Amino acid sequence: MTSLSDLPIRDDLRGREPYGAPQKHVRVELNVNENTHPIPDDVQADVLGRLAKAIAGANRYPDREFVELREALAGYLGHGLSRDNLWAANGSNEILQQLLQAFGGPGRTVLGFAPTYSMYPLLASGTGTAWVAGDRDADYELSAGRAAEWVRRTQPDVVILCSPNNPTGTPLSLDVIEAVYAEAQGVVVVDEAYAEFFPAGQPSALTLLPGRERLVISRTMSKAFAYAGVRLGYLAADPAITDALRLVRLPYHLSALTQAAALGALAHSREMLAMVDEIKVQRDRIVDGLNALGFRAYRTWSNFVLFDGVADPREVFDELLAEGIIIREMGIPNSLRVSAGTEAETGEFLDAMARYVERHGSPRTASPERAPVG
Amino acid sequence: MTSLSDLPIRDDLRGREPYGAPQKHVRVELNVNENTHPIPDDVQADVLGRLAKAIAGANRYPDREFVELREALAGYLGHGLSRDNLWAANGSNEILQQLLQAFGGPGRTVLGFAPTYSMYPLLASGTGTAWVAGDRDADYELSAGRAAEWVRRTQPDVVILCSPNNPTGTPLSLDVIEAVYAEAQGVVVVDEAYAEFFPAGQPSALTLLPGRERLVISRTMSKAFAYAGVRLGYLAADPAITDALRLVRLPYHLSALTQAAALGALAHSREMLAMVDEIKVQRDRIVDGLNALGFRAYRTWSNFVLFDGVADPREVFDELLAEGIIIREMGIPNSLRVSAGTEAETGEFLDAMARYVERHGSPRTASPERAPVG
Repeated sequence: MTSLSDLPIRDDLRGREPYGAPQKHVRVELNVNENTHPIPDDVQADVLGRLAKAIAGANRYPDREFVELREALAGYLGHGLSRDNLWAANGSNEILQQLLQAFGGPGRTVLGFAPTYSMYPLLASGTGTAWVAGDRDADYELSAGRAAEWVRRTQPDVVILCSPNNPTGTPLSLDVIEAVYAEAQGVVVVDEAYAEFFPAGQPSALTLLPGRERLVISRTMSKAFAYAGVRLGYLAADPAITDALRLVRLPYHLSALTQAAALGALAHSREMLAMVDEIKVQRDRIVDGLNALGFRAYRTWSNFVLFDGVADPREVFDELLAEGIIIREMGIPNSLRVSAGTEAETGEFLDAMARYVERHGSPRTASPERAPVG
Repeated sequence: MTSLSDLPIRDDLRGREPYGAPQKHVRVELNVNENTHPIPDDVQADVLGRLAKAIAGANRYPDREFVELREALAGYLGHGLSRDNLWAANGSNEILQQLLQAFGGPGRTVLGFAPTYSMYPLLASGTGTAWVAGDRDADYELSAGRAAEWVRRTQPDVVILCSPNNPTGTPLSLDVIEAVYAEAQGVVVVDEAYAEFFPAGQPSALTLLPGRERLVISRTMSKAFAYAGVRLGYLAADPAITDALRLVRLPYHLSALTQAAALGALAHSREMLAMVDEIKVQRDRIVDGLNALGFRAYRTWSNFVLFDGVADPREVFDELLAEGIIIREMGIPNSLRVSAGTEAETGEFLDAMARYVERHGSPRTASPERAPVG
């Protein structure tokens, strides 16, 4: 049998492992930050009507410029944006890949602040861009001073700021973005995949777009719109940025089905976002519940919670899995990540954690001091 | 206003134009080799039932390994293939992009034989792979001797053989693939996007797979399955090749909708392929009709025809467009490309060409000698 190492694969890929969050199907799935609420029936019906039209014309290539979808996304985001500011792709991973193809690539660098979204270094490698890992302040926060200093020191071609940060959930304040942009010569990407989970009234980086032609705000429909299966990422930026992406995007990269399904959900954005408020309630409940059990939950503006004080993360993971609940080990010492589910799922998780503490003792005893971060 | 040149875009992208076949919507669209037959109603109904299930679960990420789809594609291809030999992506463009990310890339080269599919050099550039353009024999044919000589001389990391070739339609015989594979150290990709339009009984390069672990056969559902709007490309190869692609693919790159829609069409492959026979009849009718008018159609095994003897391609294009018929200028001197449509569409095209000849005289007079090719 031929093995991968027998093939003339690129040297920089040899020995590497593919991205692989386990796809286990259990009763309570809180491991990949999905929205656990299914799409409301009336929205499903509208989407299906649009999909029926798309299939009837599926023998033709889709609109390569997805004009109607860009219009609808601009309408959803507001902030005076028009379709010329919008771009979309198959998930925000493809958005970031296209940005790196246009503004990164061989001989160029991309700076991020670890620990952060594990796909960033993989996307860098897939596009031949060198990944530079900056670090963070205590508790995974990121200050303007530290971020700008990393930019000054490393002069990256692209900076990715994850806001809120994944897998830590920690927010990013707008002054960090302003400081990084002022210092950077390259493109500054703010990944706002979870922006709809911000506390009420907190501004998006979209407010910083005017006058900043190298600033890109990336979003997704996977989380707030409960559309992880549809794969629709998008961005808002100066129209010149979208012109650049036209040079590297694959023609007809967004299928007629993707365009139709996204338009259907956007037509019901108010109804879809009602789920977001409920999820935020459950997220805050997880933070309080874990803290009450003696763990330490980090500050979070997303639909998930990172918590530490876990003496043996693999043991917690396995014991929860045995009860039909899956959460996520991120390779961060003494820490685990859990997504906020429905009220019932969240209750199951917290109850299981309480039983774990009963069996194994309080984390306060197990790990009295918090590990230093950064 | 910011222009693209004000941005810190990669130097190798400066001044470039995006891929852009015109997306004009007219009465008779024969410009981008689509299947002009809509999907039969019973197939649409089955596909929609599957899409309804996919939307009901769209809040979850899709099967990252698309196991059921790989199984169905293996069943469709036959040749003793199993799901471990199969891989799929959003159009065969993404298939080729992934292959170049894994086996091409910076410091590596990809060899093709011009004139050929215009996306190959763009995909090379998008992945940092150097594009090497080999040439062809008379009438855009490609012989084993010439192809192998190009491989010997340029030692490419990847070879792309387009079979039949786009935009010329010319077939590629299996001995060329055997000769290229024997000479090459790198990966040999045979792009069989139009394989279903081969003359009856002609073997696919799939027959060459056993014992050739560097050989890849790429296919698409866009043409024979009338699914250009769905974006489903796939490949068959040694399982080690698909392992390599897992290192560069974006996780969850195939949406739940794409997987469901592809499965639906594959469940009706016999019915879908019935359209193919009808299209082959129309293609042969175009060849005969154009030759009778004094043009010269090249040999074609695809769903389109390249013909020369056109003194002024832009004039023909414009006069047909004025009648609501769009075909394609490929930048090949004295030549135009037309896709085979339905019986009615094909008739409209041939009638319009006859009127053109009446108005402007026979091509035999206008361009008595065929331009040398290669």
